[in-house]
Amino acid sequence: MPDLARHPVVRRLVATALEEDLGRGDVTTGAALPADLQATATIEAQEPCVVAGLFLAPLVWGRLDPALVVEPPLRDEGAEVPRGAALVRVRGRAAPILAGERVLLNLLQHCCGVATLTRRFVRAVEGTRAAIVDTRKTLPGLRLLEKHAVHAGGGVNHRFGLDDGILVKTTHVALGGGTAAVVARVRARAPTALRVQVECRSRSEVEAALAAGADALLLDNQSPDEAHALVAFVGGRVPVELSGGITLANVAAYAASGADRISIGALTHSAPAVALHLCIEARG
Amino acid sequence: MPDLARHPVVRRLVATALEEDLGRGDVTTGAALPADLQATATIEAQEPCVVAGLFLAPLVWGRLDPALVVEPPLRDEGAEVPRGAALVRVRGRAAPILAGERVLLNLLQHCCGVATLTRRFVRAVEGTRAAIVDTRKTLPGLRLLEKHAVHAGGGVNHRFGLDDGILVKTTHVALGGGTAAVVARVRARAPTALRVQVECRSRSEVEAALAAGADALLLDNQSPDEAHALVAFVGGRVPVELSGGITLANVAAYAASGADRISIGALTHSAPAVALHLCIEARG
Amino acid sequence: MPDLARHPVVRRLVATALEEDLGRGDVTTGAALPADLQATATIEAQEPCVVAGLFLAPLVWGRLDPALVVEPPLRDEGAEVPRGAALVRVRGRAAPILAGERVLLNLLQHCCGVATLTRRFVRAVEGTRAAIVDTRKTLPGLRLLEKHAVHAGGGVNHRFGLDDGILVKTTHVALGGGTAAVVARVRARAPTALRVQVECRSRSEVEAALAAGADALLLDNQSPDEAHALVAFVGGRVPVELSGGITLANVAAYAASGADRISIGALTHSAPAVALHLCIEARG
Amino acid sequence: MPDLARHPVVRRLVATALEEDLGRGDVTTGAALPADLQATATIEAQEPCVVAGLFLAPLVWGRLDPALVVEPPLRDEGAEVPRGAALVRVRGRAAPILAGERVLLNLLQHCCGVATLTRRFVRAVEGTRAAIVDTRKTLPGLRLLEKHAVHAGGGVNHRFGLDDGILVKTTHVALGGGTAAVVARVRARAPTALRVQVECRSRSEVEAALAAGADALLLDNQSPDEAHALVAFVGGRVPVELSGGITLANVAAYAASGADRISIGALTHSAPAVALHLCIEARG
Amino acid sequence: MPDLARHPVVRRLVATALEEDLGRGDVTTGAALPADLQATATIEAQEPCVVAGLFLAPLVWGRLDPALVVEPPLRDEGAEVPRGAALVRVRGRAAPILAGERVLLNLLQHCCGVATLTRRFVRAVEGTRAAIVDTRKTLPGLRLLEKHAVHAGGGVNHRFGLDDGILVKTTHVALGGGTAAVVARVRARAPTALRVQVECRSRSEVEAALAAGADALLLDNQSPDEAHALVAFVGGRVPVELSGGITLANVAAYAASGADRISIGALTHSAPAVALHLCIEARG
Amino acid sequence: MPDLARHPVVRRLVATALEEDLGRGDVTTGAALPADLQATATIEAQEPCVVAGLFLAPLVWGRLDPALVVEPPLRDEGAEVPRGAALVRVRGRAAPILAGERVLLNLLQHCCGVATLTRRFVRAVEGTRAAIVDTRKTLPGLRLLEKHAVHAGGGVNHRFGLDDGILVKTTHVALGGGTAAVVARVRARAPTALRVQVECRSRSEVEAALAAGADALLLDNQSPDEAHALVAFVGGRVPVELSGGITLANVAAYAASGADRISIGALTHSAPAVALHLCIEARG
Repeated sequence: MPDLARHPVVRRLVATALEEDLGRGDVTTGAALPADLQATATIEAQEPCVVAGLFLAPLVWGRLDPALVVEPPLRDEGAEVPRGAALVRVRGRAAPILAGERVLLNLLQHCCGVATLTRRFVRAVEGTRAAIVDTRKTLPGLRLLEKHAVHAGGGVNHRFGLDDGILVKTTHVALGGGTAAVVARVRARAPTALRVQVECRSRSEVEAALAAGADALLLDNQSPDEAHALVAFVGGRVPVELSGGITLANVAAYAASGADRISIGALTHSAPAVALHLCIEARG
Repeated sequence: MPDLARHPVVRRLVATALEEDLGRGDVTTGAALPADLQATATIEAQEPCVVAGLFLAPLVWGRLDPALVVEPPLRDEGAEVPRGAALVRVRGRAAPILAGERVLLNLLQHCCGVATLTRRFVRAVEGTRAAIVDTRKTLPGLRLLEKHAVHAGGGVNHRFGLDDGILVKTTHVALGGGTAAVVARVRARAPTALRVQVECRSRSEVEAALAAGADALLLDNQSPDEAHALVAFVGGRVPVELSGGITLANVAAYAASGADRISIGALTHSAPAVALHLCIEARG
Repeated sequence: MPDLARHPVVRRLVATALEEDLGRGDVTTGAALPADLQATATIEAQEPCVVAGLFLAPLVWGRLDPALVVEPPLRDEGAEVPRGAALVRVRGRAAPILAGERVLLNLLQHCCGVATLTRRFVRAVEGTRAAIVDTRKTLPGLRLLEKHAVHAGGGVNHRFGLDDGILVKTTHVALGGGTAAVVARVRARAPTALRVQVECRSRSEVEAALAAGADALLLDNQSPDEAHALVAFVGGRVPVELSGGITLANVAAYAASGADRISIGALTHSAPAVALHLCIEARG
Repeated sequence: MPDLARHPVVRRLVATALEEDLGRGDVTTGAALPADLQATATIEAQEPCVVAGLFLAPLVWGRLDPALVVEPPLRDEGAEVPRGAALVRVRGRAAPILAGERVLLNLLQHCCGVATLTRRFVRAVEGTRAAIVDTRKTLPGLRLLEKHAVHAGGGVNHRFGLDDGILVKTTHVALGGGTAAVVARVRARAPTALRVQVECRSRSEVEAALAAGADALLLDNQSPDEAHALVAFVGGRVPVELSGGITLANVAAYAASGADRISIGALTHSAPAVALHLCIEARG
Repeated sequence: MPDLARHPVVRRLVATALEEDLGRGDVTTGAALPADLQATATIEAQEPCVVAGLFLAPLVWGRLDPALVVEPPLRDEGAEVPRGAALVRVRGRAAPILAGERVLLNLLQHCCGVATLTRRFVRAVEGTRAAIVDTRKTLPGLRLLEKHAVHAGGGVNHRFGLDDGILVKTTHVALGGGTAAVVARVRARAPTALRVQVECRSRSEVEAALAAGADALLLDNQSPDEAHALVAFVGGRVPVELSGGITLANVAAYAASGADRISIGALTHSAPAVALHLCIEARG
Repeated sequence: MPDLARHPVVRRLVATALEEDLGRGDVTTGAALPADLQATATIEAQEPCVVAGLFLAPLVWGRLDPALVVEPPLRDEGAEVPRGAALVRVRGRAAPILAGERVLLNLLQHCCGVATLTRRFVRAVEGTRAAIVDTRKTLPGLRLLEKHAVHAGGGVNHRFGLDDGILVKTTHVALGGGTAAVVARVRARAPTALRVQVECRSRSEVEAALAAGADALLLDNQSPDEAHALVAFVGGRVPVELSGGITLANVAAYAASGADRISIGALTHSAPAVALHLCIEARG
């Protein structure tokens, strides 16, 4: 995902978020402060976290006032920082700094939240072959940023949408006339650049998927023991991904199955925000 | 917030979310299923929750195929439902039902998550005078829906942005030359329809705010005991809101202070998703 | 209304106005002049006026050619200037200066028109306590600029839309079951940052509004004498605004009532344009 | 201008106007009235006027609630109606009727204002050969509607923008090296469907324009007598238009010159709003 | 590519094309015909062709007038039709039929042109294993339609953009430090759903690509004989695609190499338009 | 068409084309190359051609990375260049250069294709009075660029849309009640800046058009001999344009008729792409 800061989806998100918060303008700051009061401000972490999304700072503030000077990010994407760490620094007119404060914090506290949760899962499976993978269970409008934060946290990205990856779910099999027929149709119709992954919930489904020529498997809603057995059965013929009901408490047990990937919706849909705040002071 | 389903911000969010997920089209379903296969599908709760956002179903599916028949929501907004409850039902071509499934679930699991968390806070303060109030700490692009979900959960909405409410923060006071000066300037400049709320962190700040003619106070980062003392000091002269560090574990202690409102950012920025799923079957 | 020049609504308006006028391009100038002919141009007032909107000049011209050099506004917003006063000066290629001329003049002649008319009303009530206030009777798409121009003219802004202020009109009372019921519902449902203003047309309506706990009153369509009597009856308990049928000829009589505010739709919907023109000459 | 009601510029204007006024929603009506209260409403003229823009009613209300039933316009575009005339009638839920009221009235009071002022000029020149013509001195964003209103008022449309008509102004002549050179370049470069009109301020300029092959003339800032003499000099060789300083008081004198067209910026930039209001009542 | 007619990219293209052609409105038809003149019209092929894009007819005309009745397409996508074949039929008001005529014909003549050219290539390689494949060499803004037309013509779609397929070109290899290093990095970083195709121009490059684990090869700018030798060398280990300099005259020779796919930019960037026209007549 | 590079339609087209191709990002380059690898690249012609559209290079690349340095175009618009000519040069980070390569080439190969084909027609009629003219038979979304390319190729632009030129077609005459009635209505209703051109297919239609006061004629679908006779009959009273069935093989014969203009749809709808390619190398 190169050059995310210039991606039109990210730029539109920033614009939308600012319009959502500013409405017709910041009536408090506009009245409370002299229009040209100068200030310096820093965003700090109020708890330990993994950093993600700092490149958003100049997008938010630059849109409000191109004269604001936003320093390059004080930390790398993916860095683990302690409570109190300074992440972003800006100087210029106080009014636009304050007008953008909440939007920027809302973006960063979520990106850092996703990266931090991902890192915890990654740490929990260290020493196994399993990669931690995201899903399409993302917050609407925030997917590109969330996928970036997963990557910053040490995870691996699954497909970004319905068009850049093929996942034949059990629903498709049931509605479409069986694994063999469905996989054959998909192979014939879909663009040739895409692998065909097939969701399975039992050994017989795994057998059918392999027989149909699946390029990869997704084993959904298995217990760790069941996962272990199915992974062994596949025996490395194709990559295997596990999903469903996986938490920080049990992810190590799933990883011990030898699966190649473990995908977790909570990385993006339920990551708690990281506490961040902005410290601002006037400049002489 | 009347007629939320037709609000342009909501409609643009749905469009954005669909473009984000569909990209150039659903390559799996498009190849796996006959284009005109008919189906019926139901969204069910996989855990007990408070319902919010069900009016989104026809927006999502109607945009993909106006011929889909989406039944009126099976539950009222704000209803508490058990695991297994059916929430939404649709029938028509299977392909667009599946193409919209993930986007709709992503929206609903977040709306229901916010409503459910809000309800838990509301329950925790029952019997006190305190209302549970949201903040501007929302997920970018989702504020209108989140504010609606807070309302559905039994909470009360604070301002929607920087333009429809005045909150003089300690930052404004520090940068702007003191409480009296800042409040006076704000009264003179801001539109006359807006009350002036002032953030305070100590008794002396409360005294200054009242002397300056504040219409309401926000007491930030107080312990329950401190909150109790300050609320007593205010003595009902103006409404008092508490914020900062308030959790399900301590909200009752804060509410016991007699404050009018308790505002909690986590309602919107850290509500865990509610587990929902779609059951679909072919129709003869 | 901080940083109006960067507000997305203003930027979209400028873009829309330019597309409206330029269409596929300026066929006359493009053919008539050498593409790189350099010029200097000045916008001048052709009649005495109050200045508003000069910050729009770099928005219009900068969009056509970022290399144009637009000087800082030659007059402050709200300044009273004589016939012949220079307001804006620009230099650079003649073609984009001419391509933006009409759009910029159309914007400025209206902003100055609104500010000038507002100033006349403000002058007419000098020495009374009455502020001159605008309304929502604005020209579609131009409200933010018009509200700014009212402020530049010395007026005070009423609410900017249906969402940032509460005005219970007689229509709401009639349809909603009476003043007491409607005001109670509004208090319970509306965001807490907003005052509740109630429109009244008689003493009994004023009494009902005050009994219901209105924070402010709007007395509509009263004669000056009636207004005087009602203002006296209110006796400063809440702010009182007058509206309806108020002109330059009678505004002083209304202001003599002691009302706090007088709102006038004509400030924005019927302000005559101020005559402005652009003088341009080639540069050696 | 066929099918104006479906033109994307008009549709975007209506959307923009509604977003401008509604913001995040109508907090008063949403709280004051039951969501499904049914009503009937009528827009009436509060003063005699010429009608224009009534096709906008279903655009505004339909966007808020497609279930609203807007009757076909009660009057034809261009009709002269007395005080009290009913123009538009709608029935359905009261909330969206009230939410759209102000936007629709703001649009209609301006359209009717333009049409009414145009009609007064048209009446003033009856019996002469002069048509009343509009200009590009329009309110930004409203040009298509204003041009329609001019037509409804009996006027004739000049070019809609810089791209669909050629007007060589004295500025072009001065900067571009003289009438002959400029007209020749324009003829060679501009699309062939467009006539070449040349602005003149004296007899010598008229002679130069005719010699250069102008298809039409614009005589700017002439007295009625000067206009008379120049029109006589042209003697019907090309159509002649007059502009500059023309008011209701002197338009007849200008028209007596025998000019083909008289163009007046005030038709669109300074037309006073026509007083309209909405009467609404609940339906059993 | 399911449900292409409702894809937002297609809908925006239709809107853009109509705005491009209509500008401020159809001045000829609006003046020439009675506004409510009824007509029936048919689009006919003026030369034999392969049909594509007929689903666009209701999109174009429905946007101009929802009351127009557009019959379901008279031919299937991909059908070969003779000169004179009727493809689309519409009835309703003549003005919007004519206003949309050119835009619709412009779209259809290009879609049919692409499908027809594709079919000629497909016919030329019948009896070989080679599929005819498109490229990213498309006309800007028209890619989705063109890819659909290729499919209708019997071709197969390559990736739709830079994000839904991996193609390691010789440029990447040269700039990135060699085949092995680049392929390894791409495998580690790119989303797991995508195959890795590597462009090669010689046997040594093929060997390097296979050694690096390429999932597919693209042999660029080979003569038919060279292609034959390299395909034989690969021997079915991975799919092989040929590109560069392939025309209707030589495509059979290339297909005889045994390659799996032959990609041709001219399918989309140089397909001659198919001659179509609209026949319209008034209805009694 | 002044300042085409800044025209919003062109800017939107570039944005659309980039979003179409990049989707969620360039997965190959992003993974294959170091993010900050520096390079120099040149676009070269792979066959002789007429140059058009080179001003697009900074628009495409600047949107991906404003730090890229795009040299001023190496050739003038309209220049005839040999195979191997360098047209555009850029330096900066390799990743955005490659990310924009295909979009820019797609734009340029079409613009140059249109200009080159136009030039061939222009050369074919040298020595006659006939100008080569474009039509509205353009590729949707590309009209402004195509019209520019026609001009660069030496052609003349006909109207840009339905609003900036009047062409009374035989369809209008048939549906509208005859030439005289239709032309009279059009004259009365259409904006006065536009000439009235009338399409004719026979001498009697020419006579009717002239009698009705047509300002120009379009003779459609005539043989060269028929064209010759009709042009002679008109005898210079109004300009005459020929269209229909005109190719490089017969255009000289048509031009020999003495017609003023010859319009050819193939200039824009069927111009073969010119072969261009990008050469890139790393910079130390």
